[in-house]
Parts: sequence; C-alpha cells; structure tokens
Amino acid sequence: MEFQAADVERLITLLRWRRDVRHFRPDPVPEPLIARLEQAMTLAPSVGNSRPWRVIRVEDARLRADVRDDFLRCNEAAAAGYDNERRDSYQALKLAGLDHAPVQLAIFCAADPAQGHGLGRQTMPATLEQSVSMAVFALWLAARAQNLGVGMVSILDPARIEALLEVPEDWHFVAWLCIGWPEFQDDTPLLHRSGWQENDETAWLTR
Amino acid sequence: MEFQAADVERLITLLRWRRDVRHFRPDPVPEPLIARLEQAMTLAPSVGNSRPWRVIRVEDARLRADVRDDFLRCNEAAAAGYDNERRDSYQALKLAGLDHAPVQLAIFCAADPAQGHGLGRQTMPATLEQSVSMAVFALWLAARAQNLGVGMVSILDPARIEALLEVPEDWHFVAWLCIGWPEFQDDTPLLHRSGWQENDETAWLTR
Repeated sequence: MEFQAADVERLITLLRWRRDVRHFRPDPVPEPLIARLEQAMTLAPSVGNSRPWRVIRVEDARLRADVRDDFLRCNEAAAAGYDNERRDSYQALKLAGLDHAPVQLAIFCAADPAQGHGLGRQTMPATLEQSVSMAVFALWLAARAQNLGVGMVSILDPARIEALLEVPEDWHFVAWLCIGWPEFQDDTPLLHRSGWQENDETAWLTR
Repeated sequence: MEFQAADVERLITLLRWRRDVRHFRPDPVPEPLIARLEQAMTLAPSVGNSRPWRVIRVEDARLRADVRDDFLRCNEAAAAGYDNERRDSYQALKLAGLDHAPVQLAIFCAADPAQGHGLGRQTMPATLEQSVSMAVFALWLAARAQNLGVGMVSILDPARIEALLEVPEDWHFVAWLCIGWPEFQDDTPLLHRSGWQENDETAWLTR
C-alpha cells in the first residue's frame, strides 16, 4: 500500500478540524456511521495486541442522568479550586455535551487482560491505557471524517462511573464519549477561542 | 469543512495499514517528512489544551547504545517470566528496531503543566498521559501516510531512560519511538502473523 502526497494532506486537514465537541444537535446518528466508529477502534495499536479497550454504549435514561449528576458534582468541586476571576471564566465554559449528545459511550481499560500474554507491559503497565487512548482517538478521527463530533468527558469520578455501570472489577474507567452532530465547526480549540488556554507550542529538543 | 464518503474510507485504509514496525531500512528520512510528524502532534487533542507532550530527538550514538542495552536487560527479564514454550516463542520475536531506525524519539509527559490551568484533570490525572498517547498516535498516522514506519518500544525501564536523558523531574517517560522506512508492509499485526496473539474481537456492550 503506497500512500500519496494527498494522503498526508488529507490527514492533516482531518486532524486540524477535529474538535472536542460540547454542543450537539439532538438528531440521531445512523447506525452504519456508528459501525464505522467501532471498526476504527479495532484497528488501533495495542500493546502485545492485547486490545484492552472495553466499551459500553449507554442508552438508559436513568444512567445518563446519574452520570450528568456526577459531572455537575465534579465540575462544581473543580470550579471551587480556582480563584475569583479564573473561577468565573471556568464557570462560563461549557465542558460537556451530556445533555444532548444522542450517542454516549463509556470507555474502560482491562487491567490485566489475558490477550497479549503480558508482552510489552512488564516495565510499563500504563501501555494498556495508552492503547485505549489511541483507540479512542481512532474512533474520534473516524467520527470527524463522517462529520460527527466527539466530546471526551473526564470531569467525572471514575469509581462512581464504574459503580453506576456495574463493570467487572478489572475494568478501569478511561473516558466518557459524547457523540453526535456538532452545532458548529471550528479549526481551533474552544479553550483557545475562549481565552482559557491558547495553543502553546512545544518544540522538540535534540540530544 | 465537510468531509466526503471517501475520507472515512481513506482513514480506515490508513488505520488498516499502520503497523508497529521493528524492521527498518537504514536510509535517512528527509527532514520535511519529520516536520510533518511534528505538525501532526501539535494537532492532537489534549486535556485543557495543555499539550503535555515533551519530545527529545535522540541522535547521540552513545545514548542510543545505552537505550539498546536497557532494552536488552528488560527484554531478558521479561523472557524469564514465561514458561518454556512461551519463552521460546517470545525470544523468537523481534520486538524493537533500535538497531537500525534512523530517527528515534523519546516521548515524555509533563506531570503538572501550567498550560490548561488544571482543567479536566482534577478527578482523572491520567488524562495528561492520555493526551500524550493520542499525540503519539497522530504522529504514527502521519508517518504511515508518508509511507514511513513507527515502532513503539515500551520494554524499557522508565526511570533509566529519564536518567539517561537527564530530563526535568516532572517529565515522565511514555514511549520510545523508532521511525524510518519499513523493510516490508502488512495489513495485519506481526504478533497475529507470528501466532503470539491473534486479533481478538471486543464487542461493544449496551446498557
């Protein structure tokens, strides 16, 4: 498989227009598009080919409401940690699309999967969660390539989410994904636009 | 920016042909291609727009040799943990391209960057390393789209790598990346081909 110059250009465009989306239209997402997201995840790299990602698609209204409550609690606690002016800025941000996103996924990592036979993670157990993070990013890009938005919510108490969803003891919560049609598009992060945190450069060093 | 049906197809093809490469040709990689990798990383998602990835491009022959030694030590220890037959299989695998890869990057995560002002990581500090993992994957895809291979090496002692490269105390080692022209291509993981670990399916659950 030889890729052409246009391929890296297209990838860069996709990366540039991927956003963390918190503003969703409530329209449903056709199932074939969701199947593409699932397919993209299966093609992610994983340590020892262990594929440690575990995914629950959450449709239940009561569960979704409980997760929103947990977000509100955690978000309030986070706001309380800032001084006055910064707290006002924080509270003005919309940090999750839990209210409207039609598709919501809870993503977990298996703590010690049989798959892979431990290869590649003896000195660095975090490689499992690295694999899950990359699988989330594969899904994220496949969403954007279909003009869908993904918002990754981490202002949650992992233990609370694990308890709510009654997951096996060896599943650790990694992220909550809100998925749907975005209300608007942008090639620049919302946190940069809003003045919370600009796009700082991090230059490579050489040794 | 409206993406077309061909875009998700192209992305899936790129994901399918991305591999963890351990067999490199020694030919140099032109600098403009490396600049693309750097650009791709800057477009990765990050918690609070904190961009916590820190990258050292390692050219120094002595440092590279020290890292290869650490890999050999860690790999031998890992092999010793398997029973006879599995150990033979393990020892038959080539698990790193540290010998020939012309470009080698050490990737770190900043433990508590000022950027982002802590947003999104109060209850889940691992979101920083999640961001770095996604940036690595962005680079990986940009490499493959330019027909380059990337191999991610985790059979290393993080503390040893941090000491060798004399990084600031708040930088934590995430991965060592070997980059160059692959000796061969495949749409299937080497660990599947070799029979170490097949591509298991992990179906989504619904609640």
